[in-house]
Amino acid sequence: MVKHLSPSDAMFLYGESREQMMHVAGLMPFTPAPGSSPDHLRNLMDELRSNPTVAAPWNFKLRTPDLLWNPLQSWVEEPAVDLEYHVRRSALPSPGDERELGILVSRLHGYRVDLHRPPWEVHLIEGLERGRFAWYAKIHHSLVDGYSAMQAMTNALSSDPDERDWPLFFSIAPRARPARTPPPPTTPPAAGDAEPDPGGSRGIHFPELLGAVREQYGASKAVARALLNLVQASRAGDHELVSPLEAPRCVLNARISRSRRFATQSLAIDRIRAVAKAAGGTLNDVVLALSGGSLRTYLLEQGALPDAPLVAMLPVAIRTKDELGGGNAVGAILATLATDIADPAERLARIVASTARAKQQLQGMSKAAILQYSALLTAPSMLHMIPGVAGHLRPTFNIVISNVPGPDRPLYFRGARLEAWYPMSIPIHGQALNITCTSYAGSVCFGFTGCRDTVPHLQRLAVYCGEALSELEGAVLHG
Amino acid sequence: MVKHLSPSDAMFLYGESREQMMHVAGLMPFTPAPGSSPDHLRNLMDELRSNPTVAAPWNFKLRTPDLLWNPLQSWVEEPAVDLEYHVRRSALPSPGDERELGILVSRLHGYRVDLHRPPWEVHLIEGLERGRFAWYAKIHHSLVDGYSAMQAMTNALSSDPDERDWPLFFSIAPRARPARTPPPPTTPPAAGDAEPDPGGSRGIHFPELLGAVREQYGASKAVARALLNLVQASRAGDHELVSPLEAPRCVLNARISRSRRFATQSLAIDRIRAVAKAAGGTLNDVVLALSGGSLRTYLLEQGALPDAPLVAMLPVAIRTKDELGGGNAVGAILATLATDIADPAERLARIVASTARAKQQLQGMSKAAILQYSALLTAPSMLHMIPGVAGHLRPTFNIVISNVPGPDRPLYFRGARLEAWYPMSIPIHGQALNITCTSYAGSVCFGFTGCRDTVPHLQRLAVYCGEALSELEGAVLHG
Repeated sequence: MVKHLSPSDAMFLYGESREQMMHVAGLMPFTPAPGSSPDHLRNLMDELRSNPTVAAPWNFKLRTPDLLWNPLQSWVEEPAVDLEYHVRRSALPSPGDERELGILVSRLHGYRVDLHRPPWEVHLIEGLERGRFAWYAKIHHSLVDGYSAMQAMTNALSSDPDERDWPLFFSIAPRARPARTPPPPTTPPAAGDAEPDPGGSRGIHFPELLGAVREQYGASKAVARALLNLVQASRAGDHELVSPLEAPRCVLNARISRSRRFATQSLAIDRIRAVAKAAGGTLNDVVLALSGGSLRTYLLEQGALPDAPLVAMLPVAIRTKDELGGGNAVGAILATLATDIADPAERLARIVASTARAKQQLQGMSKAAILQYSALLTAPSMLHMIPGVAGHLRPTFNIVISNVPGPDRPLYFRGARLEAWYPMSIPIHGQALNITCTSYAGSVCFGFTGCRDTVPHLQRLAVYCGEALSELEGAVLHG
Repeated sequence: MVKHLSPSDAMFLYGESREQMMHVAGLMPFTPAPGSSPDHLRNLMDELRSNPTVAAPWNFKLRTPDLLWNPLQSWVEEPAVDLEYHVRRSALPSPGDERELGILVSRLHGYRVDLHRPPWEVHLIEGLERGRFAWYAKIHHSLVDGYSAMQAMTNALSSDPDERDWPLFFSIAPRARPARTPPPPTTPPAAGDAEPDPGGSRGIHFPELLGAVREQYGASKAVARALLNLVQASRAGDHELVSPLEAPRCVLNARISRSRRFATQSLAIDRIRAVAKAAGGTLNDVVLALSGGSLRTYLLEQGALPDAPLVAMLPVAIRTKDELGGGNAVGAILATLATDIADPAERLARIVASTARAKQQLQGMSKAAILQYSALLTAPSMLHMIPGVAGHLRPTFNIVISNVPGPDRPLYFRGARLEAWYPMSIPIHGQALNITCTSYAGSVCFGFTGCRDTVPHLQRLAVYCGEALSELEGAVLHG
């Protein structure tokens, strides 16, 4: 078996360096099954050692790992996957609280995946407070896109709390769920005519966009019109429609080191929906408002808040009637975070207007046109992936904020309940902080992944994000 | 402050790669002080966060870490050492036994030191069985030589079990012990006229040797005579005097991956001395015999024992009357491990004869001549550090075996007793296994550091090493 890498996949290899590590991860804390043995994680390792079945893509490795840029790079099957290497046990030092968990997964996220082996690791972490445990699952982005990674990890879990024989995730072929499969827990995406869905991100978008730039020189009529709109709005001082020329310089847009910090926040999806409804916006608008509110407080505290509002880039999934999810086509829109506005309700209103205008821009465009337009919007930031340039250009946008829809009902692994599902993403040079969130079982789980050195006291962002929701509720619901 | 790197130090930067990681480490398990709080490691972190004093060399970082080969490379002071980065807490998963400890430190040893920061890390590991804990202290070899590293870590400990105020190691300037200093626990090296001391290794020898080759072309009379002896012995079939031409090809002399395994064995020094005395050899001869016995069993089991005996390279410290330890001058001798001989007593006798002849070769040579001779003996193996060549040449020797003398009395950190002191060293391409041992408080502590992929089931070497001592006792003392 030889599977060539798509240009999208290969892009994540080109970008890989000691500071820019192109792996994504999920932090998944569990409440153990009632009455489960304290040895259940040890027993899992014994089972793993005796279980030789490793399904694709968990057995794929690069053909020429010492020559990542090889244009003929491909995935080949590793006949003898060293599962004890890929599945590891860890434990938290006392007291096993959220802080210690954050320190451990930050450290794990700061180590590179070994590209000489199938590029994934799963860490079984014990010693969380109240006998709990967690998985930290790390996958190089060249192996799977974010959507497929989410699918694969969802397949590793059951929606039945009494199911005690669920196979280990690496034995499950993707999309081929085991025989006793309950209905898939993810909401199937609604079909529409190339409808952009800012709540339907498929993760980092650069490779697809670069592909679009490569494949299609010259702008279509629709793209030209959209770009003209941008220029006119910019000239007219219309800040609702955000152009790539407007992002201010910000401390977040610096070079990064190889160390990471990670912070989490979990908020009830009903609270977010209520605010969205009252403000006439979407759930995703409120996610942006929470991110913007948190960033405003954080940057103010450091005396580093730019006068002009921060600009966020939002990956958007592009779906046509023929495609029901699973696709790879990801576009981008730019939206303001309105960080220059102190009033929370006013800030949210500005964001709602901004995303509405950005989505209007895409109306009526074909999928190809959306990709092309997105590429032109964000192309300058790709230069940051090039050594030497990285971190020295004015930013096109200040931060990537993704919202990946996840399963909406509780999931279990052999009776242990998944409590939350925090996505960990990829800071790059010029983008030292990433905010990605996932919806899961009634919550929106925020993951703040940042460079340890460029984004100090990163955990405060998570705290301020929670406070931002209370503020918004006060202003919009009870104001 | 700018401190230029010596050619020796710089060599460890040139060799650094994703597989060849030029850091050494010590694994130091402790028995907690009687009645110590279960929170004592947490409290240590609190103390560390409040303690800004970082003494040299713990605050040295490279001036141009992105250009390791810079001929003007130097150490500069880091004004704000991020101690929370360098000192870390970890915990073992259950049951916290030797196996889990081995897995964790193997993993830690397989991660590169960040050369953008002061290149050291100390991990405080809790969750060992019976409430014990351990330090894993890792230092890049470009920052300190093995001897200085040992000194620094010895300084971090007290010989007084009741001393509860010992400062944290990074606040102690090297060789400047704190005021209430008891006599240094290390035995000062005996003075002699350039007396080679195979028990007095200062760690890896390559850089010093390469320097000697560079600085002195053309052999002195003494060196020429010694080389002639080698050639004549080789021609005459005299296998006591081992020449670089005799090392067989062996599975240990292959390329390495970036993953590590580590195994330990602790043996009573009195048992080893008794065998040495009965056999008319040195403690170091018995260390070689134990290593040889262990390797013979291990390779036989794999069907990979070469017909010709394995050849070990032994770093030897070279001391003159003027130098009382701390020096950097390290020579090398080659000795047989007699792995072709089944009988343990006969194997030891062969080793005793081999090291005696090797040391004879150095008699009467000046320090410079010893360095030069050592360089000529081992130079071919340095080629293995060059990418492309590495692992493809016939080995000059099969394994480096070092014996670093350590403190002979028990040491304590604020009442916690250091149980053992296991050195972790550097596998390189062509040398997939390293055996280093340290004497400490009545024991000889062996550390087997190997490439996970090239040296499978490495922990068996530790088991066989213990069995080899019982066999030798049976053969030499009671035989």
